[in-house]
Amino acid sequence: MNLDLRNTARHLGLLMFVLSALVGAAAGFAGWDHAFAGHADTADIRALSATILIGVVVGGLLVFVGRGKAHMLGQREALLLVAASWLLGAVIAAMPYRVWSSLRPDAQVTAHSFDTFVNCYFEAMSGLTTTGATVVESIGTLPRSLLLWRAMTHWLGGLGIVVLFVAVLPLLGVGGRRVYRIEAPGPTPEGAMPRIQDTARILWFIYLGLTVAEVAALKLCGMDVFDAVCHTMGTLATGGFSTLDSSVAGFSSTAIHLVIIAFMVLAGINFGLYHQLLHRQWRSVLKDSELRAYLAIMFVATVIVTVCMLRAGQHVAAGGSQPAPVGLTVRDSLFQVVSIQTTTGFCTADFDAWGFTAKATLLILMFIGASAGSTGGGIKVVRILIAAKVILAEVEQVYRPKIVRTVKIGKAVIDPDLKRSTLAYVLSIAILFAIGTALLMFFESEGGVDITTAATASAATLNNIGPGLARVGATQNYAWFGASSKIVMCVLMPLGRLEMFAILVLFSPRFWRVE
Amino acid sequence: MNLDLRNTARHLGLLMFVLSALVGAAAGFAGWDHAFAGHADTADIRALSATILIGVVVGGLLVFVGRGKAHMLGQREALLLVAASWLLGAVIAAMPYRVWSSLRPDAQVTAHSFDTFVNCYFEAMSGLTTTGATVVESIGTLPRSLLLWRAMTHWLGGLGIVVLFVAVLPLLGVGGRRVYRIEAPGPTPEGAMPRIQDTARILWFIYLGLTVAEVAALKLCGMDVFDAVCHTMGTLATGGFSTLDSSVAGFSSTAIHLVIIAFMVLAGINFGLYHQLLHRQWRSVLKDSELRAYLAIMFVATVIVTVCMLRAGQHVAAGGSQPAPVGLTVRDSLFQVVSIQTTTGFCTADFDAWGFTAKATLLILMFIGASAGSTGGGIKVVRILIAAKVILAEVEQVYRPKIVRTVKIGKAVIDPDLKRSTLAYVLSIAILFAIGTALLMFFESEGGVDITTAATASAATLNNIGPGLARVGATQNYAWFGASSKIVMCVLMPLGRLEMFAILVLFSPRFWRVE
Repeated sequence: MNLDLRNTARHLGLLMFVLSALVGAAAGFAGWDHAFAGHADTADIRALSATILIGVVVGGLLVFVGRGKAHMLGQREALLLVAASWLLGAVIAAMPYRVWSSLRPDAQVTAHSFDTFVNCYFEAMSGLTTTGATVVESIGTLPRSLLLWRAMTHWLGGLGIVVLFVAVLPLLGVGGRRVYRIEAPGPTPEGAMPRIQDTARILWFIYLGLTVAEVAALKLCGMDVFDAVCHTMGTLATGGFSTLDSSVAGFSSTAIHLVIIAFMVLAGINFGLYHQLLHRQWRSVLKDSELRAYLAIMFVATVIVTVCMLRAGQHVAAGGSQPAPVGLTVRDSLFQVVSIQTTTGFCTADFDAWGFTAKATLLILMFIGASAGSTGGGIKVVRILIAAKVILAEVEQVYRPKIVRTVKIGKAVIDPDLKRSTLAYVLSIAILFAIGTALLMFFESEGGVDITTAATASAATLNNIGPGLARVGATQNYAWFGASSKIVMCVLMPLGRLEMFAILVLFSPRFWRVE
Repeated sequence: MNLDLRNTARHLGLLMFVLSALVGAAAGFAGWDHAFAGHADTADIRALSATILIGVVVGGLLVFVGRGKAHMLGQREALLLVAASWLLGAVIAAMPYRVWSSLRPDAQVTAHSFDTFVNCYFEAMSGLTTTGATVVESIGTLPRSLLLWRAMTHWLGGLGIVVLFVAVLPLLGVGGRRVYRIEAPGPTPEGAMPRIQDTARILWFIYLGLTVAEVAALKLCGMDVFDAVCHTMGTLATGGFSTLDSSVAGFSSTAIHLVIIAFMVLAGINFGLYHQLLHRQWRSVLKDSELRAYLAIMFVATVIVTVCMLRAGQHVAAGGSQPAPVGLTVRDSLFQVVSIQTTTGFCTADFDAWGFTAKATLLILMFIGASAGSTGGGIKVVRILIAAKVILAEVEQVYRPKIVRTVKIGKAVIDPDLKRSTLAYVLSIAILFAIGTALLMFFESEGGVDITTAATASAATLNNIGPGLARVGATQNYAWFGASSKIVMCVLMPLGRLEMFAILVLFSPRFWRVE
């Protein structure tokens, strides 16, 4: 069957309208900031307005191209829609940065990271995929409206652009379920909810509820509303963009740290479990194998990092030689472990200065990641559980060839297809990580980038973390990479966020072929 | 069922006798060298004789412990026998080095790598597993009889110590087949040969035939008999120990290089195909998918490396700035590609001085490795083929969920169990590689070892290559590692050689448990 490109184009066009409306929200804030908060310059208002115009024109063209009778989306069309919406969505999301950079008052005098489109696209893709890797060298140079837009890209990408679309517009029909399956992270969507639109709406209500709760909590701890909103969006999407160069380390209040830790942990849990909680199914939530493993890994990693820090007698935050108070060491170790495992990427410590064992622990957490069905990235805890159990069963098979043990997660028996696809997934991540590392080394070979930087940049973008080690460490940024390297990472980020296949199929000749 | 330790001990004891007899061959050569070739010192004769004594005593004790009625070996006993024979066999194989080091005339005056047991064990394990990583800083310090023993450990390990045992003694019964399956590399033993003892004998006849052929060819090219024998053993086992510090680069004759290239290629081919050739099944050999892929990968890699070298205008051998003759560049690129892919590890060029792309190509070849059923290591070409096809099928499954394609290698359909176990194997190698790298970084953290050294040392020992990059590069050795790191690598080498499971099961509590 031929790919129905027209139908896909029409849906993509409608999605551009939705995105433009969201840019409108940021533009509204920019107007308010100009009118009431004493922000004199209007470059950001004009940039955001221009983006809305571009979005509407592109959307209109796509709808025009795709006019005619609407069909249901097939599997391939749904994949194409998701892939195209992320790749094109990032173009729209990059526009405010790029246009603002040309219009800002000192554009002729000083250079800015946003002077090149590839940097803006990197920042937008990093936002939408909830990676949180930034090319902005000094965040203070950005107007507040763009900081809000940056945080909004996280928030939108957290649950998925298209899932939002499904929730708002009842257009996709059966295709909607397909789209949802592609965008929702993890192998097992929990619960058996009858209609896909209902599912999408429930997810967004839970997401909104958590958002309101975290903004209120941060406000109570003394953060101002603007910072609270931006950091909340970064937390719940497990994104990591901050409004400060020093990230969360810039807020000294322990209460703020604890609130962000709590909501990062919550964002990394399967949202299906919240749905079960709403139905008062406490028991099944508490018995959930992935939740238990997720919290257990977090606990063990925190203990390891804390012990390393205390033994080294280093102040984790400062990385200096002064002995640290135990409480502060525990707090900062916990923050960094949670931030990396949930793939958020906020920093309260320069963990690049930590010892080998602590850094290796964080690197392992980058690959493990959060729970399936959460906003977090990485391989996902449930996949790690399945892969580990399959490999152990494989070893036992060698010395007890006649015993066939079923592999179980909780009470669910893992069927052969899921075993195979899980192993294939984990292996593919390892291969993509290696390819990413090799390409970054190759493109940066003139600058002589070290392998730690290349490998952790590859891991941090593929798993949607944000910061890595060495030259992409907690206090560094991604601005210094060449354009080719940035394009590589702009492919790695959606590969990780969409769990590879939606992007990978675009490279498969058979996908495009008529059959 | 309880593990029958007695029965296992008895077989292990008999194996020690066989090993002692082989040390006897080296001792005989030492005596001849002393009597006729003007080698004045007798330390090596005494060291080898002492080893024979130790081997006979240990073997006798084990046979005594294991006296009583002989049983058939079960699966767990067979695994235990293989694992124990490699771990204990390396102790016996290390003895000549260690005892010689104490007895050598200048033992009181100068230090030698063989002054510590862990170094001797490393060298012996590296030999038996056909890795070829050495701790000897100056090979000229060793007497010729020990060089011969070093080469012999390769030759014995190439087809497998226990397989030799099976061929010689008809003791193992059904257990023999089990042992053979564990020691023979790769997932698919070719051909349906009726009796395991016949199989083992045919393999050893092919191996002997190739050995005689290569010795003759090298002799014809002007190498002296001793060097020819040692290099032949290193070639056919895909080992890599040389009699010169400069490895094969020390022989300037292109004819010698070409002979060694040819026999490395032959050693990396499934020995089952030679058995088919003996039965004149030319067609099925030429159509063999793994053979074709193996040669194709070799060809492509050689082209890539050659082009890189020619573009850089570097003389590959010298690594200097002089433009190299094209012929020499092709020869040395081909040699290094074949040496690394077959996991031999002979060097004719300091590839550590090559450019990034060439080095990355070699690193990929380290993991791909040779064919299943050859003497080579690595993941094996057929497993790479299966894993790649399964992953591609997995991607297609995403956009064509209803189409079920069978995955085939040649005409053979890959069943679900083989898919799963292949993916599990490749993934386990990736995990063991990462663990090995992390442990080496951890144990060498005081010396501040770089990650390239740690990662390539892990890859080069796990895949039984020998040389890696940076501080374990072509012109370097493994002497400088600490004892803990060497023990790590002494675990990685048999894990790779025995394809993990035989060693890995020893760590499984269930393996030892009565059920």
